[in-house]
Amino acid sequence: MTVDTAPARVFIRSDFVVFGICAAAVGLAAVTRYANVPSVLAFAVAGGAVAALASLVGRSVEQLGDRFGAGATGVLQGALGNLPELFIGFFSLKAGLVAVVQSAIIGSILSNILLVLGLSFLAGGLKHGTQRFNSERARTTMVLMVLATAALVLPSLASYVHTPAEPHEKSLSVFVAIILLVVFALSLPASLRRSAAAAANDVHMEPPRWPVWVAVGLLALASGSAALVSDWFVYALEPAIDAMGISQAFAGLVIVAIAGNAIENVIGIKLAYKNQSDYALSVIINSPLQIALVLAPALVLLSLFTATTLTLVFAPMLIMAVAVTVIAVAFIVFDGESTWLEGATLVALYTIIASVFWWG
Amino acid sequence: MTVDTAPARVFIRSDFVVFGICAAAVGLAAVTRYANVPSVLAFAVAGGAVAALASLVGRSVEQLGDRFGAGATGVLQGALGNLPELFIGFFSLKAGLVAVVQSAIIGSILSNILLVLGLSFLAGGLKHGTQRFNSERARTTMVLMVLATAALVLPSLASYVHTPAEPHEKSLSVFVAIILLVVFALSLPASLRRSAAAAANDVHMEPPRWPVWVAVGLLALASGSAALVSDWFVYALEPAIDAMGISQAFAGLVIVAIAGNAIENVIGIKLAYKNQSDYALSVIINSPLQIALVLAPALVLLSLFTATTLTLVFAPMLIMAVAVTVIAVAFIVFDGESTWLEGATLVALYTIIASVFWWG
Amino acid sequence: MTVDTAPARVFIRSDFVVFGICAAAVGLAAVTRYANVPSVLAFAVAGGAVAALASLVGRSVEQLGDRFGAGATGVLQGALGNLPELFIGFFSLKAGLVAVVQSAIIGSILSNILLVLGLSFLAGGLKHGTQRFNSERARTTMVLMVLATAALVLPSLASYVHTPAEPHEKSLSVFVAIILLVVFALSLPASLRRSAAAAANDVHMEPPRWPVWVAVGLLALASGSAALVSDWFVYALEPAIDAMGISQAFAGLVIVAIAGNAIENVIGIKLAYKNQSDYALSVIINSPLQIALVLAPALVLLSLFTATTLTLVFAPMLIMAVAVTVIAVAFIVFDGESTWLEGATLVALYTIIASVFWWG
Repeated sequence: MTVDTAPARVFIRSDFVVFGICAAAVGLAAVTRYANVPSVLAFAVAGGAVAALASLVGRSVEQLGDRFGAGATGVLQGALGNLPELFIGFFSLKAGLVAVVQSAIIGSILSNILLVLGLSFLAGGLKHGTQRFNSERARTTMVLMVLATAALVLPSLASYVHTPAEPHEKSLSVFVAIILLVVFALSLPASLRRSAAAAANDVHMEPPRWPVWVAVGLLALASGSAALVSDWFVYALEPAIDAMGISQAFAGLVIVAIAGNAIENVIGIKLAYKNQSDYALSVIINSPLQIALVLAPALVLLSLFTATTLTLVFAPMLIMAVAVTVIAVAFIVFDGESTWLEGATLVALYTIIASVFWWG
Repeated sequence: MTVDTAPARVFIRSDFVVFGICAAAVGLAAVTRYANVPSVLAFAVAGGAVAALASLVGRSVEQLGDRFGAGATGVLQGALGNLPELFIGFFSLKAGLVAVVQSAIIGSILSNILLVLGLSFLAGGLKHGTQRFNSERARTTMVLMVLATAALVLPSLASYVHTPAEPHEKSLSVFVAIILLVVFALSLPASLRRSAAAAANDVHMEPPRWPVWVAVGLLALASGSAALVSDWFVYALEPAIDAMGISQAFAGLVIVAIAGNAIENVIGIKLAYKNQSDYALSVIINSPLQIALVLAPALVLLSLFTATTLTLVFAPMLIMAVAVTVIAVAFIVFDGESTWLEGATLVALYTIIASVFWWG
Repeated sequence: MTVDTAPARVFIRSDFVVFGICAAAVGLAAVTRYANVPSVLAFAVAGGAVAALASLVGRSVEQLGDRFGAGATGVLQGALGNLPELFIGFFSLKAGLVAVVQSAIIGSILSNILLVLGLSFLAGGLKHGTQRFNSERARTTMVLMVLATAALVLPSLASYVHTPAEPHEKSLSVFVAIILLVVFALSLPASLRRSAAAAANDVHMEPPRWPVWVAVGLLALASGSAALVSDWFVYALEPAIDAMGISQAFAGLVIVAIAGNAIENVIGIKLAYKNQSDYALSVIINSPLQIALVLAPALVLLSLFTATTLTLVFAPMLIMAVAVTVIAVAFIVFDGESTWLEGATLVALYTIIASVFWWG
């Protein structure tokens, strides 16, 4: 309404909405943490607060990245975007909930490339008919996802067939974790360049509004709060699981995985609905790639500092589910087009996998 | 020889040939059913009669579908084309031959995408050299086949690795069966539209000759006879297996699977030989898709009404064979071209799989 | 320096270099074979001599093939190129080292499509950026590789899940071996035509320099020496394994596999570095195809004449490694482009697989 030049405004209305929601959610989570409320309620509120803080982390990263050149955003998001999931994983490990962490890692991959991809195909296909995504970028990301998945499943396979390496599963997991992190580090320059190119093409690009110190400060505050609230989330997790009568595996695979990825997920579906199917696909399959290349190995290395050891030897059904899924989705990405029926089938596949873990 | 206008003729010569063969085959099968003949002979005659009736069902569906708009043919064929196989499966379940039914389901998939696809590549390649099939339709059908196979194998995988879901394999199978049927139902509108478009392009399309009541009557008659003869086929199956000294698994995987799909199979190979490789591929990979989406789940649900329970937990070698095969064939379809050597290799792969089941 | 016309010169300088290296290497290997030297040294020298002789075999085949029409080179190379590996395999079987032979077969496949392909992507990508290889030939070769791998793994899968075919694993392996050799024989005419076409396009093509009797004589001499030196290599293998404290599986998978393929490997990497990425890919994935279609089945059949039986039932981890790898690489080939990051990831995957076998 005023004639102020836009860049002079540090905060716009949507910033205040996010701040407000975060403050309210964290406050509410603090109350449910220490008050005597049902564990399922405390768990749900903490989950909501984690999702809200994940959104604030994302916003701060965006503002900060833009300061240092547009390309830095992608890299920062790669490193910090999974921060809330990392906190949840770390506190779950400290609480000894290895089954939750392992199924949450696989569940995050599955919820992205089955549920979210399926919903985005459904939303895009019902609105726009058959959608095409012939970009090389999607195929290249998918090839890396196939390779990362191959690396991720090898320690489990080695353990199942009782190779002589079986007693060394911890060393093997650490070795694979380091290799995955090295591959991620090597991929950063290309991501940087690609993000910069994408930013240059993006007409919707706004100049950064927040001064560096505001962005850094909010990032630190949001991250710190996310750490705190993740702790509460995990604290409520075990009693909530008991109260709901579900298995640790199902809780990790479905509930923790969806809560931890809620924000990114919505973005992907929105983009498909707006018929930006190429961009939607990139966002959606980039997320599980980061889980395989960063989150999983980081948690393995962090677990060396907790009493609980996290190895990359997953329950066999988790490995089978991720193997079947990654192969099927790779064919879909290579097909270069999507229909709402494929979307519905992906969601159906997710439902079947979830139902396998339902019986705890 | 006469100058009658063609549409005035309700039946043409090839109709009478089919009627004659069906009547003779059913009569012969009735004789071998109740006379004291060797079981292998009775089995072979009943198998021939089932194939003849399948051809008559197909012809009636075609005439009927054309009345209600060309597109309906595809849908009706999807629903009724596997009717003889469904009868054989149902009676085999009633006879307690679960191993036969399970291996016949997988065998029908394998015989289509290995033996028939291989023979069509061989026939087409030897006659026309390298054949190309770059249609999106083939790739989209193959993607659905990959997804349906993924859903189909999950209950088996869950059982092999002894997840807590193992004792619930019956509930899980029913759940997966319902989901597969829902995906099939969702796919009908698109098939309808696609068939209508295909029909519009098809210059060979003839106007329907049979009045509706004739088509419906013959369809009912052929279906009823198919049910009856399927019963005889299954009646002779067990003694014939014993007489030939083969295993139930081999009988289902190879003999029942090929008998049940004989007619469709010949069509696919013929089309490839005529260099209509795109159409041939569509016909050939559409058939196993319907087996996965309709026949297998329908038999699981029908088994609830028999004393024998059919679950989707197949023998491990069946699952491995279908997994290896579907992945290999998906790459062939995505390659977009075929050679006679690929055809020969597919047939070789079929021979190897069959030989694994030979040793009973 | 002289003005002699080039074709008049039977041997050029690089011929003499190869002759000299071969003579020196064989002589040295003879000394270390019979003198009292550490086994690891004898093993390394014999390995070097095998590689040198492999290079001489290749050179003789090239000269010989050119005499009988350019296309014959490819076929001769297919049949004779793996001769040194065949000798090593045969003598290892005679020495009862089945685990070495089996892991060397799989290791030869893996070292080609992970290590060598990865290094060629790395070399090509770092020098030339993203490389494209959209040729149908690479995809067709990869499809055959997928099909051959499917055939190769089926006897193992049948054994793992204890099908009734398990006690017949020897018969089944011989059957699969014969089928693979038949597929190879059927592929020869197409390879012949393809090589001839490639030769016609190849401007670097030189006229053959060696008279037929020289080429045949040198081929016979090199092959005979390779047989002799392979025997020494295997003789030193077991004590060297003990001295190095590694497992038979690791020795076969990594050391024997790399030694046996050393020459071809260097060629593929060089071609990628020269930005002939299509040609590089063809050379690199053609080599494991020949291992699956010729070397492995030939060794199975040859083992019928030794006291040790070689079946196609491999250790489960070998099968899992090759299955994961072939699927991942098939997607890379179908992607149609490569980056140095994909190369690095392939090398990383090779390292992980090797490390699994490190713990013996």
